[in-house]
Amino acid sequence: MESSKKVPLLFLFTLFVLHVNLISCERSSYIVHMDKSFMPKAFANHNHWYSSTINSLKSVTPKSLDQHKKPLSLVYTYDNAFHGFSAVLSKDELKALEKSPGFVSAYSDSNVKLDTTHTFKFLSLNPYTGLWPASEYGKDVIVGVIDTGVWPESLSFKDDGMTAVPSRWKGSCEAGQEFNSSLCNNKLIGVKYFNKGVLAAKPNITLSMNSGRDTEGHGTHTSSTVGGNYVEGASYFGYASGTARGVAPRARLAMYKVIWDEGRYASDVLAGMDQAVADGVDVISISMGFDGVPLYQDPIAIASFGAMEKGVLVSSSAGNEGVIGSLHNGIPWILTVAAGSIDRFFAGDLTLGNGITITGWTMFPASAIVTNLPLIYNKTLSSCNSSDALSTVGYGIVICENGSAFNQIGYISKSNAAAAIFISDDPETFEFSDFTYPGVVISVKDAPILIDYVTKGVKPFASIKFQQTLVGTQPAPVVASYTSRGPAPSYPGVLKPDIMAPGSLVLASWIPNTATAFIGSNIALTSDFVAVSGTSMACPHASGIVALLRGAHPEWSPAAIRSSMITTANPFDNTNNYIRDSFFNYEIATPLAMGAGHVDPNRALDPGLIYDATPQDYVNLLCSMNYTRSQILTITRSSYKCSSLSSDLNYPSFIALYTNGTTNAVVRKFQRTVTNVGEGATSYKVQVVVPKGSTVSVYPTTLVFGRKYEKQSYSLTIQYNGSNTEAITHGSVIWVEDNGKHVVRSPIVVSPMIPIW
Amino acid sequence: MESSKKVPLLFLFTLFVLHVNLISCERSSYIVHMDKSFMPKAFANHNHWYSSTINSLKSVTPKSLDQHKKPLSLVYTYDNAFHGFSAVLSKDELKALEKSPGFVSAYSDSNVKLDTTHTFKFLSLNPYTGLWPASEYGKDVIVGVIDTGVWPESLSFKDDGMTAVPSRWKGSCEAGQEFNSSLCNNKLIGVKYFNKGVLAAKPNITLSMNSGRDTEGHGTHTSSTVGGNYVEGASYFGYASGTARGVAPRARLAMYKVIWDEGRYASDVLAGMDQAVADGVDVISISMGFDGVPLYQDPIAIASFGAMEKGVLVSSSAGNEGVIGSLHNGIPWILTVAAGSIDRFFAGDLTLGNGITITGWTMFPASAIVTNLPLIYNKTLSSCNSSDALSTVGYGIVICENGSAFNQIGYISKSNAAAAIFISDDPETFEFSDFTYPGVVISVKDAPILIDYVTKGVKPFASIKFQQTLVGTQPAPVVASYTSRGPAPSYPGVLKPDIMAPGSLVLASWIPNTATAFIGSNIALTSDFVAVSGTSMACPHASGIVALLRGAHPEWSPAAIRSSMITTANPFDNTNNYIRDSFFNYEIATPLAMGAGHVDPNRALDPGLIYDATPQDYVNLLCSMNYTRSQILTITRSSYKCSSLSSDLNYPSFIALYTNGTTNAVVRKFQRTVTNVGEGATSYKVQVVVPKGSTVSVYPTTLVFGRKYEKQSYSLTIQYNGSNTEAITHGSVIWVEDNGKHVVRSPIVVSPMIPIW
Repeated sequence: MESSKKVPLLFLFTLFVLHVNLISCERSSYIVHMDKSFMPKAFANHNHWYSSTINSLKSVTPKSLDQHKKPLSLVYTYDNAFHGFSAVLSKDELKALEKSPGFVSAYSDSNVKLDTTHTFKFLSLNPYTGLWPASEYGKDVIVGVIDTGVWPESLSFKDDGMTAVPSRWKGSCEAGQEFNSSLCNNKLIGVKYFNKGVLAAKPNITLSMNSGRDTEGHGTHTSSTVGGNYVEGASYFGYASGTARGVAPRARLAMYKVIWDEGRYASDVLAGMDQAVADGVDVISISMGFDGVPLYQDPIAIASFGAMEKGVLVSSSAGNEGVIGSLHNGIPWILTVAAGSIDRFFAGDLTLGNGITITGWTMFPASAIVTNLPLIYNKTLSSCNSSDALSTVGYGIVICENGSAFNQIGYISKSNAAAAIFISDDPETFEFSDFTYPGVVISVKDAPILIDYVTKGVKPFASIKFQQTLVGTQPAPVVASYTSRGPAPSYPGVLKPDIMAPGSLVLASWIPNTATAFIGSNIALTSDFVAVSGTSMACPHASGIVALLRGAHPEWSPAAIRSSMITTANPFDNTNNYIRDSFFNYEIATPLAMGAGHVDPNRALDPGLIYDATPQDYVNLLCSMNYTRSQILTITRSSYKCSSLSSDLNYPSFIALYTNGTTNAVVRKFQRTVTNVGEGATSYKVQVVVPKGSTVSVYPTTLVFGRKYEKQSYSLTIQYNGSNTEAITHGSVIWVEDNGKHVVRSPIVVSPMIPIW
Repeated sequence: MESSKKVPLLFLFTLFVLHVNLISCERSSYIVHMDKSFMPKAFANHNHWYSSTINSLKSVTPKSLDQHKKPLSLVYTYDNAFHGFSAVLSKDELKALEKSPGFVSAYSDSNVKLDTTHTFKFLSLNPYTGLWPASEYGKDVIVGVIDTGVWPESLSFKDDGMTAVPSRWKGSCEAGQEFNSSLCNNKLIGVKYFNKGVLAAKPNITLSMNSGRDTEGHGTHTSSTVGGNYVEGASYFGYASGTARGVAPRARLAMYKVIWDEGRYASDVLAGMDQAVADGVDVISISMGFDGVPLYQDPIAIASFGAMEKGVLVSSSAGNEGVIGSLHNGIPWILTVAAGSIDRFFAGDLTLGNGITITGWTMFPASAIVTNLPLIYNKTLSSCNSSDALSTVGYGIVICENGSAFNQIGYISKSNAAAAIFISDDPETFEFSDFTYPGVVISVKDAPILIDYVTKGVKPFASIKFQQTLVGTQPAPVVASYTSRGPAPSYPGVLKPDIMAPGSLVLASWIPNTATAFIGSNIALTSDFVAVSGTSMACPHASGIVALLRGAHPEWSPAAIRSSMITTANPFDNTNNYIRDSFFNYEIATPLAMGAGHVDPNRALDPGLIYDATPQDYVNLLCSMNYTRSQILTITRSSYKCSSLSSDLNYPSFIALYTNGTTNAVVRKFQRTVTNVGEGATSYKVQVVVPKGSTVSVYPTTLVFGRKYEKQSYSLTIQYNGSNTEAITHGSVIWVEDNGKHVVRSPIVVSPMIPIW
């Protein structure tokens, strides 16, 4: 992660450790998938077989390596999420390995990317009705978090009010550097760390913290968001103050540390997910993703297939790239979560000398006060991007316009100004907390009141009051500017992301020993709780809801849980208008940005109908892809049968892709089967919101169920008329129960094709 | 008070509004004392008489004033603490007034000075034994605080746990600007404000806050220190965090606002004290004093005489001038309180790259963090007083030496340094919170460890952790550098101050809308609680103890309460050595700095013997002074008889003054009477600690008491041998009960005479 101490920290972990291909005589790390059915009976277990396989490669070991006496060895062996191992191999060794019996596939141990920016939460969970009481707040559901580790002393991980750990739990609390195994408790029930990948790739380094202890903050934040205990008096420097708590405050947490200051490797991620499944977690939350890899080389896709087979839903983040077609974790058998804003506003009250108060935005991280100081406004310096111009400024409040507040504040902090007023509607302003000097951002629409007072008044002055937190602000949610958009380049045929959850300026625990804010450019501050933004923050909200649903409906499959969240998601904001997208000038958001809409946990508890899917359904989907047998085997492991290959997964959403530039009509036909999970006999009628430029037909238009768990099927045909080249259009198909109780909505997208990975 | 917004606030209110004598044709404010026995029977009350007196002056009103049609009028009338009025008069009018029947004295309405710096508390009060349970935490004792007003919304003034207001209370809650009378409650039972003096002196001003609301913070701090309710989670920017509470947490508070942003006038102070007595307060706490005035022109001396007669002990602050003979409020009939440190240390842990940690002092007001940054040390910039030299510094930790940390930090904050280490043993460092940039002060004795590491290491680096609060530090208390020393220039014949109480970096409530700290020179911060220092902070600690003693011993006179605090005060610090004086290079402190020692509330509850005094005793003392009849009348009001004039007040301490330069022996003889307030018959034997260069004899050396409340007398003779010119020496006389239960100690001082006011 970024270690610069001189600039305000941006909690957007966009750092990409580029993978440099080594020349063939040098070794690098590979993850190797094996078909266990090929294992000779002579071997007692898979570890022996994999060791023997590696040892057999010695003949091809180049002399240059041999001279350094570094024997070939296994880094990890995997046996739960998938079968195989990771190892550090030369290209020649890899070639030899590919000829070994049982070899399925191998790919380079790539770098994983975290999804963080600065964020928020608002979910209508309550103790009186809905998902919290129905699930007993996630009691005894175990969530495995794959991340940067955890700060076990954080108040979010105390176990007040938690009962004894469920006996089915097979995990443990691994001791390590500055980490005693007694640090686990009835809330944080397991901690393990996976460093063999990073150590194999960089054999000469020393890990700065060789244990499950978080040195970064990300894992502490995500895990406390999923299931942190109640913490009174939490705040980010006086903002968002209140009682913090996770989405599933009674769920158990198990941390699998796979991210290191020294590097991020797919082999470690795979090992962590593999172990989580072996330990018996019910849900996996993973706020990171791999960019630019096909499904059969994506460790999350691979490990999550095995998790899904064991009934574990993996909840993941869509990524923070913002643009169309940049989404990662677009994996058909997991949940992919986009990020939205929440209805909270961090305010600074700007009171002009004439008594008028304008509510601005600020997150200056201290109890600053600006009282009756002169307002300074002139066109030669109001761009606030010239140190020379600002050096002439006296002690007062400088008005800045026509620029980025985050850039301008750097210049202001080096001037003699007491504070600044930034005139800006840049949506990023409301997604990041980097406010390094006293100031407020006011809307362009409010600016004339200020400018009129300044230009017409004699000795204009103003005061600013900081650390105000407003809730119930509208509209909310809006789609975050940074959230990565579908279609999913690894497989665009399933509409991704699935849903949106609160991701912007989410308050949760952080590690206490790193900078979480700056004053000016030099003064670094810490805080036990921070408000950060990203799909990394949205994902654990969804993961917490998955845990609650798992607690309330232990009989549901991963696909059923996901279906309940998608078909009940809310496409409307708190003004009852369609949710808007801050990246696209607050136009109506498409499902490529937010999936079906904002997750609605209480409605997900009782969705009426479910679009279920079995492991075989996903195999059938894989069989329909242009993959080789070994590529498919990499995902499915030893056993799969392409019995009825189908690209038409029984998914609760629809995407029709057309070749960009086509002017011909394109017809896409889908078949769906829904299961009645409501109580007893019922019937539903269809409603369709047709995407512009397309027609949609559904047959039948009525579904009649004689009993609970009965299944009914329907077909849906989208005909794109070819007139809307490059346009992304969207609509929905909504099954409305005749008694009005359940409304089962699936988004429809018609989109041009994107480049795929 | 200081209103500069550009420099870090020093909470030492040394601002002295110089009193400019107006030319004779212009009017200024006077306080006039009248002998009420002269009031003609024709007048229904004193107000009529005073009005008539003023009206009779019209004949001498100069034409220049007459033209402006400003009629003569009363500002205040006083009838409780003393008899008289205040009025705005010309010199000629004053001369005419002096000839009016009943006129006693008049003096200019002078400016009052507040006693504040930055401070602390440590008192061994506890719920299990001693003064707290004995007094029920001061339940139903009413403390009147004469100050800058109060911030009624402060959590310290909520009335959780308080019972109904005692029916004897005659005060009220005066409404005013931004102050609704409903803001009082069962904790803050009365608020009144006195502005006529300031308005009379400055008739053209508008008061910025014309109500009892505090605009400064001082009164909110002192009143919450006396009797604030419990407030959880209080801290000064993370330092001294914990549950705040007053010394007498169940006492009632009544605020009399007499200090204004626009001026400080004796007439307002007098009016406030007068009203407090009329309202029925049990104790008056007044953290301010008048410099350079004799007793008969000192409003506090005057008003407190009447208070004393009504059984109300006035507790006052000694002043913050530091030097010998600068003490104010050296008034024989009140309690005069010096300030000491407490056993608390605000620390920053400095950890060097070699693993060694040095505990430094810091109060940087934010959760700063400095991690593994280069140490920068070279002789060309280590004086840290050159912007040019510091402009070359990179992002690291600069080491500063040979200067004042408070000066150096200003230069550091304008450099590119991340933090600084200041090498200094300046005691003021530990008394003030002005830490405007990340840094720590380390002791000169610890410096070699640092310098050795920096000069011998390769790429030396360090980390600093802020916001640590240590308690139990030694030695404590030490006498604060700023506390004003006796002898008392208004009457040096009584040893002042009486006692010392915690005064340095006391945490208590403050007003939320002013700067209480700065970051750099531009960023102002607020805090609901602040740690400030001064005898203003020591005084309310003593006032709270007076309230507790009043609750436990309602039968005791003001002199008895004071005696119990003096004779039980502790001359030792928490290392069991004599208390040291930080101003005098940590030499052993004399009683001129700290009186009898550090107040010990639990011992004061049960002092064994009491040195009592009646109002007539104080009259006898006044009669012995070189005062005119009217000067004495000014203090005593209408009735006094110099029946047995005596400079030998029955005070629980002894001071022998000699003319500086004398080489002759000086003999001073004292007579004392002690009252047995222990249970039943007992006897005491004397022990004497003889001041160097003097001899002390006591007769008798045994005091035998047949019953409780019996009185016994003894004489004490100090013979100064003339050999120690200019030296201040000290000792004590200690009456030790034969059963060892009570130890009754009185300090003895032998001192050269000082200039008197």
